[in-house]
Amino acid sequence: MYDVARIRADFPILSRQVNGKPLVYLDNGASAQKPRVVIDAMTQAYSMEYANVHRGLHYLSNLATEKYEAVRGTIARFLNAGSEHEIVFTTGATEGINLVSYGWAAPRLQAGDEIVLSVMEHHANIVPWHFLRERQGVVLKWVEIDAKGDLDPQAVIDAIGPRTKLVAISHMSNVLGTVVDVKTICAAAREKGVPVLVDGSQASVHMPVDVQDIGADFYAITGHKLYGPSGSGAIYIRAERQAEMRPFLGGGDMIREVTREAITYNDPPMKFEAGTPGIVQQIGLGVALDYLMGLGMANVAAHERGLRDYARHRLAGLNWLQVQGNSAGKGAIFSFTLDGPAHAHDISTVLDKRGIAVRAGTHCAMPLMEHLGVTATCRASFGLYNTEAEVDALISALELCHELFA
Amino acid sequence: MYDVARIRADFPILSRQVNGKPLVYLDNGASAQKPRVVIDAMTQAYSMEYANVHRGLHYLSNLATEKYEAVRGTIARFLNAGSEHEIVFTTGATEGINLVSYGWAAPRLQAGDEIVLSVMEHHANIVPWHFLRERQGVVLKWVEIDAKGDLDPQAVIDAIGPRTKLVAISHMSNVLGTVVDVKTICAAAREKGVPVLVDGSQASVHMPVDVQDIGADFYAITGHKLYGPSGSGAIYIRAERQAEMRPFLGGGDMIREVTREAITYNDPPMKFEAGTPGIVQQIGLGVALDYLMGLGMANVAAHERGLRDYARHRLAGLNWLQVQGNSAGKGAIFSFTLDGPAHAHDISTVLDKRGIAVRAGTHCAMPLMEHLGVTATCRASFGLYNTEAEVDALISALELCHELFA
Repeated sequence: MYDVARIRADFPILSRQVNGKPLVYLDNGASAQKPRVVIDAMTQAYSMEYANVHRGLHYLSNLATEKYEAVRGTIARFLNAGSEHEIVFTTGATEGINLVSYGWAAPRLQAGDEIVLSVMEHHANIVPWHFLRERQGVVLKWVEIDAKGDLDPQAVIDAIGPRTKLVAISHMSNVLGTVVDVKTICAAAREKGVPVLVDGSQASVHMPVDVQDIGADFYAITGHKLYGPSGSGAIYIRAERQAEMRPFLGGGDMIREVTREAITYNDPPMKFEAGTPGIVQQIGLGVALDYLMGLGMANVAAHERGLRDYARHRLAGLNWLQVQGNSAGKGAIFSFTLDGPAHAHDISTVLDKRGIAVRAGTHCAMPLMEHLGVTATCRASFGLYNTEAEVDALISALELCHELFA
Repeated sequence: MYDVARIRADFPILSRQVNGKPLVYLDNGASAQKPRVVIDAMTQAYSMEYANVHRGLHYLSNLATEKYEAVRGTIARFLNAGSEHEIVFTTGATEGINLVSYGWAAPRLQAGDEIVLSVMEHHANIVPWHFLRERQGVVLKWVEIDAKGDLDPQAVIDAIGPRTKLVAISHMSNVLGTVVDVKTICAAAREKGVPVLVDGSQASVHMPVDVQDIGADFYAITGHKLYGPSGSGAIYIRAERQAEMRPFLGGGDMIREVTREAITYNDPPMKFEAGTPGIVQQIGLGVALDYLMGLGMANVAAHERGLRDYARHRLAGLNWLQVQGNSAGKGAIFSFTLDGPAHAHDISTVLDKRGIAVRAGTHCAMPLMEHLGVTATCRASFGLYNTEAEVDALISALELCHELFA
């Protein structure tokens, strides 16, 4: 039984007020709030169990190392990776995708080689590829979405040509909520010998993910969206891809031996992790993932489907409001604009006065904004602790906006 | 009046026991412990004030952004940078130095161009340059230290030739404690038109640092050594160097506009900060630096000079123990080996049984180990909360080691 009231009590911030109103936090697409167990685990780590990892032999260093390294296994379970060696710690999806761009793609892609991506990618899954375009003449091939915001997997597969070296695709749009059939894409790409990077920043938060079933070569997640600490994260990298990669960040821990003339590198995944890592935030991420697995990601997904259906129904009743994207299986993420002069920023400000946190802007997805023909949207993005009453509060505040700006 | 007992009470972990003995934490060179104000600030941020930064207009996002961005000014004050725009947030010194390697050096150094560095650099200030050697044929020129562990600034200056494009040098050795006269090096290098990167990972923890007085082009610091959170840090980059750099990590926040065909970048320092940053750990770092400035870095340095002198005196009384490096002005960092069969790891293990945390190994400085002719050392590294009584505890435990292994 998914008891949302009990779950809400796990998150200290949800009991606070904003502008004299109870906080209605609908900015989960940007970052999620943290349960008390995560905050407490970090406090405990810093207060009683802190030291640097890997390099020490003393008690605290061993203790911190054990707790830190155990998170690799937790992430592997969360994503159903075949081995925890396929989990590389990162500071978030951005670093993870840059690792693939610098460590795998940059040394192997030539001018004229192609990367296939969709128009609804987040900048984190665009800019690293633009770097390769600017620096090495790589060609970006953009795949369109349809009027509902769906991405036909066959359109992605059809875009794979003889010069395609990588497909980089989001599992769930952070703007539209669209879920992409990445499994079908991965299977077809694999037959053509083309690796697939999946940006799982949103999908991993809202649904069960099985990287082996998907067949991804790279699957990036980000801890701060997963109810974990800022600066935490990981990327799943299939072992055979790891073997093809050169190191990215250089420093301690990722080397085996350094002399004046030469250098040898550690085995993966350590080869891709340089310097003192985000020890305590990764420990916190482990606790966050345990929390999610305790709830059950299928249960989280079911709860959010309920919210999605209810919000979709309520928003459809506002005939002066345009929701962008209406994919049948979308997540509970709603980007919208209001008819009339009200800019997304104005709407966000009015909602904020009622304690409702939504995002307004381009959501780090400018090519998608261009595709949609809008300069900005408001986005209400739901998480595991949101309720139908919060949908009602949103609708009521939007009606106020409509009156104010009509 | 520097009241070390009162200061110790600020650090929760210092009241704990290890192996039934009071913790004597002498592994500060690897990472420092955190005062309660830092831990509490992070708890507060996660419990009551958390949201993503920069992109939001709602109350919590604005609050988090204000607190996060204020840290840039705190770091600028701590380093006496001319402008907070010269402070780029990083996850630590490793990311900072890689930023310079990828963003400044890689696009401008040609095969045969030289980077001057000393034999006592930390791997974080070696491996990124080895990358350039491996990938683009850059030549690394190593400057020796003398028998005391001192680095003659003139030797560094003399190593600067017509092909030298960068000097990369540590301000304080993490193994020997040697303080390098980086100001003299920077002045001479500037006359020759060669930028200088200073690795301030250790120096910034133990002495007042003024990047304008030093005249550095790049000055990297790392938060976890500065009594701040893991995964926090920054690098000072002089404005004229920023203008020469291309971006490094690609993602949200560092762009101005992204289309399918083109991309434009944000102004520095944002240009070099991609994706959701380490929001809460940087807020924690700000509190840590305020704590240090509250104590006064000159007072911290004076306290640690006292510890250094006392430890030097006590260690000199052990004629079966060899301290590596004896620079007159060194910091309170002591690397040593024992005569006889005891390996550094054995010594560390014995000390740990007495609650004393020291590090054993190569300290991410293998070229220095080779120079010293040792495979590993034990290292006792002191911080602002250590005491003469802890020096006594170390000496007493070392005497036990000597008896055990003699």
